[in-house]
Amino acid sequence: MLVEEELDEAPLNDLAWDLVHQVLSRLDELRIDAVAGFGPGVLLDFGVDAPGSLAAGLALVEICMAGLCEVSLTAGQLCGLGWPMLCVQTDNPVEACLLSQYAGWKIKTDEYFAIGSGPMRAAAAKEPLFERLQYKEICDGVVGILESSQLPGPDIVEMIAADCGVSPDHVALLVAPTASLAGTMQVVARSVETALHKLSELGFDITRVDSAQGSAPVPPVAADDLTGIGRTNDAILYGARVTLWVTGDDESIRELGPRLPSSGSSQHGRPFLEIFEEAGQDFYKIDPLLFSPAQVVFHNVESGRVHHFGQVNEDILKLSFGL
Amino acid sequence: MLVEEELDEAPLNDLAWDLVHQVLSRLDELRIDAVAGFGPGVLLDFGVDAPGSLAAGLALVEICMAGLCEVSLTAGQLCGLGWPMLCVQTDNPVEACLLSQYAGWKIKTDEYFAIGSGPMRAAAAKEPLFERLQYKEICDGVVGILESSQLPGPDIVEMIAADCGVSPDHVALLVAPTASLAGTMQVVARSVETALHKLSELGFDITRVDSAQGSAPVPPVAADDLTGIGRTNDAILYGARVTLWVTGDDESIRELGPRLPSSGSSQHGRPFLEIFEEAGQDFYKIDPLLFSPAQVVFHNVESGRVHHFGQVNEDILKLSFGL
Amino acid sequence: MLVEEELDEAPLNDLAWDLVHQVLSRLDELRIDAVAGFGPGVLLDFGVDAPGSLAAGLALVEICMAGLCEVSLTAGQLCGLGWPMLCVQTDNPVEACLLSQYAGWKIKTDEYFAIGSGPMRAAAAKEPLFERLQYKEICDGVVGILESSQLPGPDIVEMIAADCGVSPDHVALLVAPTASLAGTMQVVARSVETALHKLSELGFDITRVDSAQGSAPVPPVAADDLTGIGRTNDAILYGARVTLWVTGDDESIRELGPRLPSSGSSQHGRPFLEIFEEAGQDFYKIDPLLFSPAQVVFHNVESGRVHHFGQVNEDILKLSFGL
Repeated sequence: MLVEEELDEAPLNDLAWDLVHQVLSRLDELRIDAVAGFGPGVLLDFGVDAPGSLAAGLALVEICMAGLCEVSLTAGQLCGLGWPMLCVQTDNPVEACLLSQYAGWKIKTDEYFAIGSGPMRAAAAKEPLFERLQYKEICDGVVGILESSQLPGPDIVEMIAADCGVSPDHVALLVAPTASLAGTMQVVARSVETALHKLSELGFDITRVDSAQGSAPVPPVAADDLTGIGRTNDAILYGARVTLWVTGDDESIRELGPRLPSSGSSQHGRPFLEIFEEAGQDFYKIDPLLFSPAQVVFHNVESGRVHHFGQVNEDILKLSFGL
Repeated sequence: MLVEEELDEAPLNDLAWDLVHQVLSRLDELRIDAVAGFGPGVLLDFGVDAPGSLAAGLALVEICMAGLCEVSLTAGQLCGLGWPMLCVQTDNPVEACLLSQYAGWKIKTDEYFAIGSGPMRAAAAKEPLFERLQYKEICDGVVGILESSQLPGPDIVEMIAADCGVSPDHVALLVAPTASLAGTMQVVARSVETALHKLSELGFDITRVDSAQGSAPVPPVAADDLTGIGRTNDAILYGARVTLWVTGDDESIRELGPRLPSSGSSQHGRPFLEIFEEAGQDFYKIDPLLFSPAQVVFHNVESGRVHHFGQVNEDILKLSFGL
Repeated sequence: MLVEEELDEAPLNDLAWDLVHQVLSRLDELRIDAVAGFGPGVLLDFGVDAPGSLAAGLALVEICMAGLCEVSLTAGQLCGLGWPMLCVQTDNPVEACLLSQYAGWKIKTDEYFAIGSGPMRAAAAKEPLFERLQYKEICDGVVGILESSQLPGPDIVEMIAADCGVSPDHVALLVAPTASLAGTMQVVARSVETALHKLSELGFDITRVDSAQGSAPVPPVAADDLTGIGRTNDAILYGARVTLWVTGDDESIRELGPRLPSSGSSQHGRPFLEIFEEAGQDFYKIDPLLFSPAQVVFHNVESGRVHHFGQVNEDILKLSFGL
């Protein structure tokens, strides 16, 4: 799907729009709201005022990955307790995770803050990774996910529409705070995505990743977004396990492998909230190499070799989740 | 969905009827029988004379919960052995579990005995819990599950029809003995239901439970119903793990929590069959607070706190299942 | 479905054809190729030149079992690592596994070698097991899976067509090498099948097996077929767990049980590749009783008894998979 020229089509946004349409017929079932009086586009509240649900969380993850994934909530265990696990699986890890799911669009005005993800990013294509991957969609309509505690106003929608080159009535935005059920699920579905993003940052050719599977514990929904940020990050940093099926040489994997899981960062080993507070609640003062799963296992389908790095740390999860 | 007035519609029974229709086109595949010469309604044998199947068990669970659930059989482990686990997940725990799945309708004549569950209970609405939850469906057709070793005669169907305010040809009954494959699966799908029912008995406002996930080991199908009653109860009491996403205060959870899992009962700690025999095979002489999962974990989505109570006891399962 | 006379219909091949048609509309998504210029039938490359995918592997398994199964890839654990597990479940174990999935058709010419499986075997019906089970399908079209590192030429298709009594343009062949992602998944989906086949070899009446569940770790895709043969066999011999729901007496199970898992063979205990090399890479010099899962648990649905035999050996898997 990666092309060197701009696409005259929008596979990721089109796939996501189809899923948005399905969700529109299940609002009550998902306990989400279509926000009215907002303009001609689609604004869906997955957890700001609406309560949301497990099914809403799964739908939000699927849309955020442009449908190029299998996502499920399974009954696993953590610290001796029955515990829900968020599992994702994809044969399109670059498209689903980097071109769509990665939370790379910071949306900030004097009155509004959101972390934007989803396929709308591929229409705006302003982030360096789109340059690097030579990908941009020319769209009729775009779909985005906003991790935010507030619903956006018309100004935000117009800004997004302009950046994506569509009219505001062709924008669908799905909003959930970190401290909501669907929002929490959406963030901890990023097990594979964080692995891919960090691989990319480490200079690994991520088109070598053919397929991926990942899982992470669903943290207890926090009472406030700050705690939510701490817990969802801990779920990934200390609880996520990822399997990557890759092609190419082993040497490059062996070389960068130890730096890939969160243990590759010097800030690894403490609850994320502590690290975040120490950095003055500024993500940009935190070691960017911290953001990755607890464990990554490579299956090299060409050499037949397995390489594994990092491990789950239940002690920190216990502390972070208040168990 | 809970209303203070009687409903003029029947969402639970309607949902279940749709599923019954699907099942009618899969009789051979599910190894179940549509009992003929029985009258104008629908009588499905899931395990009395018919053998049933894993797929029949899953369908029976889904219908018993009015379709308001995700149900699956997963490959887990028990006592070091590969072991099938019955998992349920729902965003409508009160409707799926209490208004539909709970086995609250004892059907007893001189010649017939069955434990009735499923959405027909919401049409009869004779149990105190319907009064408490102010819920009653006005139906065209009703769907019920009978845990029984015998197929019901026309008198039973007429009795149920009369109680539900429908004509006998608008009754669908699905029958499975405890000691059958589908019947066993149906009972051990009650992990979440037993948690909710006991919460309700302990005076907890169960509308605070937004969503739930539960799992329990599928016991070996017993040779006789008495052993089956022992094993299926043990699967819940000593093997079920439940996660509840709830709203509201923590104090009420902390207060009643220790009484919630089966360990909250003084009769906890021995195979259920022993307790049942000691009570002269009379359920009503057993501590009602015994009937609950081995472990319950609360995720309070408002306070962000986790509360966990009880634990799985593999020793008793080993004994009960003959491992 | 087992009949004493030849069938004038072809349920297994018909079911598989329907699935092949679905796959034909998903070629890009599955990263598989429809090989053109090959003749009028269907030839699908699942891993010879095409890369394949996780979804392709799942589709290949499903078709190989004639759709009479639930198959899934779950996020499990192995040797402390997150690890993908291939799970199968069926209410038609004899049809899905023995009449369809069993790799019982060796296809060999001077220029070509493949191990054939899938429902085409039930149309050819040349193997002794079809005689024993009195089963043969009269078909319009047949579907077969070829485990091979090469695509077959027209001569192979004609040979298969002739053996199955169909014209060559009514043959669908799906090809994957052992050392490919879909091919690896296809082989390790044989947890239940190897249990059934060995039961049959031990003289057990396999029509007593009503339902089954099995799981095995997905080995790292090997660089060459020889290593692939070693790893996929080890995944079954030392990593597969199977549950069988059976009818009938317990004595026969107790009697043959200890011989059923791979530990019942004197060659058990070393990586399969070692055993294979020692036998001069000749499968037929290896103890046929070696080919079975690491662990089998019987649930006798009539007697209510559980019988379990064998256990998983992570040490050998660690060695075999290079962990």
